[in-house]
Amino acid sequence: MRAAVMRNSQLIVDTVPDPEPREGEVLVKTLACGICGSDLHALKHAAKMVEIARESGAPFVLDLNRDVVMGHEFCAEVVDYGPNASATLPPGARVVSMPLIFRNGRIEGVGYSNEAPGGYGELMALSAALVLPVPNGLATEHAALTEPMAVGVHAVAKARLDPQDAPLVIGCGPVGLAVIAALKLKSAEPIVAADFSPLRRALAERMGAHVVVNPAERSAMHALAEASSTRPAVIFECVGVPGLLHQIMREAPVGARLVVAGVCMEDDLIKPMLGINKELSVQFVLGYTAEEFASTLQAIAEGRIDVAPLVTGRVGVDGVPGAFETLAKPDAHAKILVEPWRA
Amino acid sequence: MRAAVMRNSQLIVDTVPDPEPREGEVLVKTLACGICGSDLHALKHAAKMVEIARESGAPFVLDLNRDVVMGHEFCAEVVDYGPNASATLPPGARVVSMPLIFRNGRIEGVGYSNEAPGGYGELMALSAALVLPVPNGLATEHAALTEPMAVGVHAVAKARLDPQDAPLVIGCGPVGLAVIAALKLKSAEPIVAADFSPLRRALAERMGAHVVVNPAERSAMHALAEASSTRPAVIFECVGVPGLLHQIMREAPVGARLVVAGVCMEDDLIKPMLGINKELSVQFVLGYTAEEFASTLQAIAEGRIDVAPLVTGRVGVDGVPGAFETLAKPDAHAKILVEPWRA
Repeated sequence: MRAAVMRNSQLIVDTVPDPEPREGEVLVKTLACGICGSDLHALKHAAKMVEIARESGAPFVLDLNRDVVMGHEFCAEVVDYGPNASATLPPGARVVSMPLIFRNGRIEGVGYSNEAPGGYGELMALSAALVLPVPNGLATEHAALTEPMAVGVHAVAKARLDPQDAPLVIGCGPVGLAVIAALKLKSAEPIVAADFSPLRRALAERMGAHVVVNPAERSAMHALAEASSTRPAVIFECVGVPGLLHQIMREAPVGARLVVAGVCMEDDLIKPMLGINKELSVQFVLGYTAEEFASTLQAIAEGRIDVAPLVTGRVGVDGVPGAFETLAKPDAHAKILVEPWRA
Repeated sequence: MRAAVMRNSQLIVDTVPDPEPREGEVLVKTLACGICGSDLHALKHAAKMVEIARESGAPFVLDLNRDVVMGHEFCAEVVDYGPNASATLPPGARVVSMPLIFRNGRIEGVGYSNEAPGGYGELMALSAALVLPVPNGLATEHAALTEPMAVGVHAVAKARLDPQDAPLVIGCGPVGLAVIAALKLKSAEPIVAADFSPLRRALAERMGAHVVVNPAERSAMHALAEASSTRPAVIFECVGVPGLLHQIMREAPVGARLVVAGVCMEDDLIKPMLGINKELSVQFVLGYTAEEFASTLQAIAEGRIDVAPLVTGRVGVDGVPGAFETLAKPDAHAKILVEPWRA
């Protein structure tokens, strides 16, 4: 199959072996797959990512000397089943899945594995038990956004918001926008959001932010204090660059809860005394539960999360390397979808 | 009065002006005052402490060009009252107090202020509204330990323990020992504790730890896993040196909650990806509430917290500089009390 491949820390388009569905697996054709900021990070900081995965005792660790087909935000179509797979959906049925596959008694990350190619290729093998049918009528490109939206739903769930809590979203890239959508789903109000990019600020408003600020002009913390007075601050860090956690700890009000959803792969310097003096808490978050993933799909299908504004570009497999370059400049796009069937 | 004074980042014994009780204040004679690790930090990192206090927007900031009489863990005796103070306790009554004073419409930290000398001097002015009588019969030197024990009670309260949570205490200096005592008060079991010092490990056992390890011989995390299987880990960082937070994040199990009670005044490097991959949370804690302070005094008076093992030394004012040096070597002592009336 044709695929965009991470090889020697480069993104290259090549023909690679088709995946074959094994015991309990389903072979699917990729219809659309979002490009995730984590994939940009992974390409740039691959060695660091592997080192940290190993250090964390992660269940799967990449071998960077072998090909990786990334892409973990997908909607796909059932093609065939492997042995002993429960074939509840007919060929042609559209599905989404958490990007995980159970194989040989362990978990692999689809799109972050040498064994399980992701959605930047034409075909994928998935665990049949994990696929969910796309509810009738939901557009493929919107179903493909289930995964990134579930990240927001999970981050907000981990924040365990009380009705009086006042949320602030720092960074309105796809993660921040997903957090805003999830906050809106919970009827949080007011939702304050900050980003340097005019495009992203406009998207933040469309996703449900009530107050949107440009940090170059106005402090996000001041905007939060003005919008919500002394209500407890819950600050979502959705950027993931070194230094930002310190900056938020420095500016946060006493007792603030920080939820770190931004993926910072580099080392980071903090001043613990800032956290101590203000009794801050920091909750790091990752992924979502199976229930959150399924309920996010449902929320999108029912129009409670409107993902239409987020899709700002579409490319075929050949366009993936160029799309990675484009996405490095944050103002041009929110989500670019890879449609491997596209010429 | 005679006092041990922080002057130009040195600890010097000198005669300084007696404090005078102002509006709403009570003048007390210091009977006993514990030496706190924070005071050792403060002497060593005074400039850093002031910088961070300013950066945190703290209500009071030291002027290092002026004298500071430290000491905030005290038991004292009522001498006299200032104007309009509610004089509910007679001269000679023994009292403890949170080390805070309301003056000129703002809060000063007794022992961390140019205005409010602490317990390393013979006399203190306190807010009359904050003093609590020492329950009849409780030894002065045990009452003086209310403050450090309240730090442990608060840290454990902020951890919001569930019955299935499995606590691990890293560091068995006075803060760690207070956390162990507070965990015992909550009937947490098993309490696992780790320290390199044999003296401190012995004290940890006396304060209620069920499993005590020497990290030079055995990983504290392994001991925790062995003692509590897969129960959720709640890890109390009670040391406060750079690098330890990273080490705990690296070794902690998935989903662990970290409570940072150690006071690290220096910058610290973390790897956010470790926190993300394991969905860790980090709660920084400081001080205690007025209710926690009062309930800690009560728990000590009723024998539910046995502080007797903690007092390992006693000095007069002249002995304070030497005691600071002694305490820099962690194996010799737990708590040294300053008794300014002692020759």
